[in-house]
Amino acid sequence: MAGKDVDSTEVLKAGSAAPSIKRRELVAGLVGLSGAAVAGSALSASTAPQRISLDPTRAPGASTSALGNRAGGEQPKRIPLGIISLTPLQDLHGTITPADLHFERHHAGIPAIEAAQHELLIHGMVERTLKFSLADLKRFPSVTRTCFLECSGNLFTNAPEQTTPQMLCGLTSQSEWTGVALSTLLREVGVRPGAKWLLAEGSDAAVMTRSIPIEKARDDALVVYAQNGEAIRPEQGYPLRLLLPGWEGNTSIKWLRRIEVADQSFMTREETSKYTDPLPDGTARQFSVVMDARSVITTPTYPQHIEKGWQEIRGLAWSGRGRITQVDVSIDAGRSWQPAVLQGPVLPKAHTRFTQPWHWDGQEAEIQSRAIDETGYVQPTAKQLLAVRGPGSVPYHLNPITAWRVAPSGEMFYRGDAWE
Amino acid sequence: MAGKDVDSTEVLKAGSAAPSIKRRELVAGLVGLSGAAVAGSALSASTAPQRISLDPTRAPGASTSALGNRAGGEQPKRIPLGIISLTPLQDLHGTITPADLHFERHHAGIPAIEAAQHELLIHGMVERTLKFSLADLKRFPSVTRTCFLECSGNLFTNAPEQTTPQMLCGLTSQSEWTGVALSTLLREVGVRPGAKWLLAEGSDAAVMTRSIPIEKARDDALVVYAQNGEAIRPEQGYPLRLLLPGWEGNTSIKWLRRIEVADQSFMTREETSKYTDPLPDGTARQFSVVMDARSVITTPTYPQHIEKGWQEIRGLAWSGRGRITQVDVSIDAGRSWQPAVLQGPVLPKAHTRFTQPWHWDGQEAEIQSRAIDETGYVQPTAKQLLAVRGPGSVPYHLNPITAWRVAPSGEMFYRGDAWE
Repeated sequence: MAGKDVDSTEVLKAGSAAPSIKRRELVAGLVGLSGAAVAGSALSASTAPQRISLDPTRAPGASTSALGNRAGGEQPKRIPLGIISLTPLQDLHGTITPADLHFERHHAGIPAIEAAQHELLIHGMVERTLKFSLADLKRFPSVTRTCFLECSGNLFTNAPEQTTPQMLCGLTSQSEWTGVALSTLLREVGVRPGAKWLLAEGSDAAVMTRSIPIEKARDDALVVYAQNGEAIRPEQGYPLRLLLPGWEGNTSIKWLRRIEVADQSFMTREETSKYTDPLPDGTARQFSVVMDARSVITTPTYPQHIEKGWQEIRGLAWSGRGRITQVDVSIDAGRSWQPAVLQGPVLPKAHTRFTQPWHWDGQEAEIQSRAIDETGYVQPTAKQLLAVRGPGSVPYHLNPITAWRVAPSGEMFYRGDAWE
Repeated sequence: MAGKDVDSTEVLKAGSAAPSIKRRELVAGLVGLSGAAVAGSALSASTAPQRISLDPTRAPGASTSALGNRAGGEQPKRIPLGIISLTPLQDLHGTITPADLHFERHHAGIPAIEAAQHELLIHGMVERTLKFSLADLKRFPSVTRTCFLECSGNLFTNAPEQTTPQMLCGLTSQSEWTGVALSTLLREVGVRPGAKWLLAEGSDAAVMTRSIPIEKARDDALVVYAQNGEAIRPEQGYPLRLLLPGWEGNTSIKWLRRIEVADQSFMTREETSKYTDPLPDGTARQFSVVMDARSVITTPTYPQHIEKGWQEIRGLAWSGRGRITQVDVSIDAGRSWQPAVLQGPVLPKAHTRFTQPWHWDGQEAEIQSRAIDETGYVQPTAKQLLAVRGPGSVPYHLNPITAWRVAPSGEMFYRGDAWE
C-alpha cells in the first residue's frame, strides 16, 4: 500500500504539540524573533537542526494579496494549435475547468469588445424588436448551471502512442455558467406565431452564425455573462455568449450580438459546408448537434509512469443528452467490464468524474472506459463508429472508447484507434 | 422592462446573415484582407461605415494561448488586510469562487513548500505509523466535494454604511475540492481502540494546530490536494490541506504535515485563548466549530446605484449543518418575507445562490435575507445574537441578518448592525 513505514525513533523526535509549549518559549527567546513568527517552531528547531533551511516553519511566510498565483511547480497549460487550444485533462481533478484553461476554438480570433458598448439585438418574427445592454441583461432573473462544452471536432485521429488526453480530446471543458434564460428574453420580445428557428450571430471577425431550433432556445438555452463566478473570459465570448447545454461547442455563439427569429433554418456555412458528417453513401448528416455520450480516462495515461500495486483509474464522462448513469472500466482490453464509482452530484449534460481502484500486477495491460447515459446509449468502439461513418469520415462527432496500454516498465501509452 | 426599443430602419440595416455572402466577397476584395479575417464582415462594412473603428468584426482577433486572462475591464480583487484577504462577493456570480479570489487567513504567512519533499505523518494511537508523500496520497481513492469555507471571524462589526459585502463578510468562499477521505487514511494506519481526538498540524511558521474529534474525521473530513480542478493554491495550503466541511475555516489546517491520534483533545492555543466565544456570564463557548446558517445579499448592495423598475435581488446562503432549505427575502425592513428561488443543485454545507425579482418603486426601502437550514435553524437578527452573546462579544461566529438600504436616489447602503 501507499505510505512509508516510519521508525519509532523518528516519531518520538517529531513529538506532540502539547509538550512543545515550553520549548517554543525557549526557542523564541534564543532566536530573538517575534512570537507570531516562531510560535510552535520548537518542533523542528529542537529535533532536526540539520534541516533548518528546508523547514518552512522557521521563517514567517508570504503575505496576503489581492490575487493569488499558482504554486511554482504547478503550471498546467493549454496547448495552443492555431485556431484551437486544448485543456490539460490529465492535469485536472474534479469536474471544474479553471477558466484560464478552458479550451478555445475561434473562427477568426478573439475580438476586443468594450462591454459598455456591447448590445444584443433580438429581431425578426417578434412583437417588439429590442436591444439589450449588458446592464439590461443583468437585471433579468439569473440562472446558474454547470455543464460541459465540447467541440464537435474533439478527436485527434491516427494519433501516435505518445499522446496525452489533452492532445487526444482536450476540446472539452466544464464551467459553472450564469446568465439569463433565452426563453426569458424571447418572452420579452414576444415571438410571433410560426417562428421556428433563431439565428445567433457573434461579433467576431468571422461573424460566426448558427441556426438554433426554437425548441432548444426555449428549453435550456442561456445567454451567459459569467463563468466560474467571474465575468466570461475574452476567449469564451466576453461579454456575452449563447450557451446551448449538450450541443456542439460552436453553436454556443461567442461574443453574441444578434438573434434573429424566423420560420426556417438560415442554413449558414457552419451547417452546410462545415460541421456536417459525410457518410459512406455520399450523403451527409446535418444538424447533428447533440454531443453523444463519451468518457476518457485521464489518469493513468501517457506520459505517466506507474508503479505496481494500487492505483486509481480516474476519468471524465459526459453526455449531451442528459445524465451519465454508468461508466464501465476494463483493465483487460475490453474483455470484461466493471462499473466505476461516479462522483456526485451527477448533473445532466455535465462532466462526471468516475474512479475505479486498480491493482496493477506489473504485466502488460490495457485500460478502457465506456460511458452510458440516461437514454441507454452506450459509448461505441472506434470500430463500431467507423462501420457507420466510413473511413473517409471527417473527425466530427467521433466519441470512441479510448484505450491506454501499460508496458511492463510501468510506462503508459495511448493505444491508437481504428483510423490508423 | 430592461431592453431598448429599436427603430425599424436600424433593424433593416442590420439585415440577416444569408444575403451578406456576396457582399462579403466584395469587401474581401476591396480591403485586401485574407478570407478568414473578413469572412462575414460585410454586415458592418455595408451598413455602418461610420462605426468601423469600433466594430470588432472588421479585423481578425487575438490568437489562442496557453493560459487565458481576464478582460481588461473585469478585474475583481481580494482586499488584503494584513493577516486576511477578503473575497469580492459583490462581483461574483453563481457559487464557485475563482481560486485566485478565495479568501485568506494566515497565522504566520504562506510557507514556501517543495511539494516533492512534503510528507504527511500520521502517528499516535495507531497500529502503523506512516508517512505519506503527495504521490502516495494521489494513489488512494479520491473524493471530490464542493463546499464553502468560512472564517469564524467573518463579520465587520460597527461597519459604516459605505460597506460592501466583501468588507462586511468576505471571509467565505467556495471551491470544488478533491483529495482523499481522512477515514481512508485512518483505516490505513489502523486507529487503536480508545482514540477520540486527532491533532492536525500545519507546516507554516505558526505551526497551526487544531484538535479534531475522531467522529468528524471519520464522517466527511478530507485531505485535499486540488481546488477547482487544479492544485491547491499556496495560500490555501499547497500542497495539502485538511478540509472539514461546514466547520470554521481555521480547523481546515493548511500545509498539513502531521496528524496525531490521541484519547483526548490537545487543547491547543486555537481552542483555548483563540476561537472561543466569551459569554455575558464570564464563561466562554469552546469548540463552537460548526458554522451556523447564514445568508447575505450580494446585489444590489453598496456601492451600487439602482434604477427604478425590475431588479433581481441575489445572494448566497450556507450552513455548516447541512443543506439550505429556504431563504426568505424582505423588501420592507423585515416586516414581511417571501421565499426566494434557490439555484440548484442545493448541496450540503455549500454556498447556495438565491434570487428574488424586485420591482423598486423609487421609495426608500430596506432589503434583507434570512437563511433556514435543514435542521430548522433560522438565521437570527443582530439583536437576537447580541442578547445571547453580550455586548463584549468578540466577533466570532456572528451570523446576523444583514440589511441594505436604498435611498430615493437609487444609492445602496449597508444599514449597520446592532453593535453600533
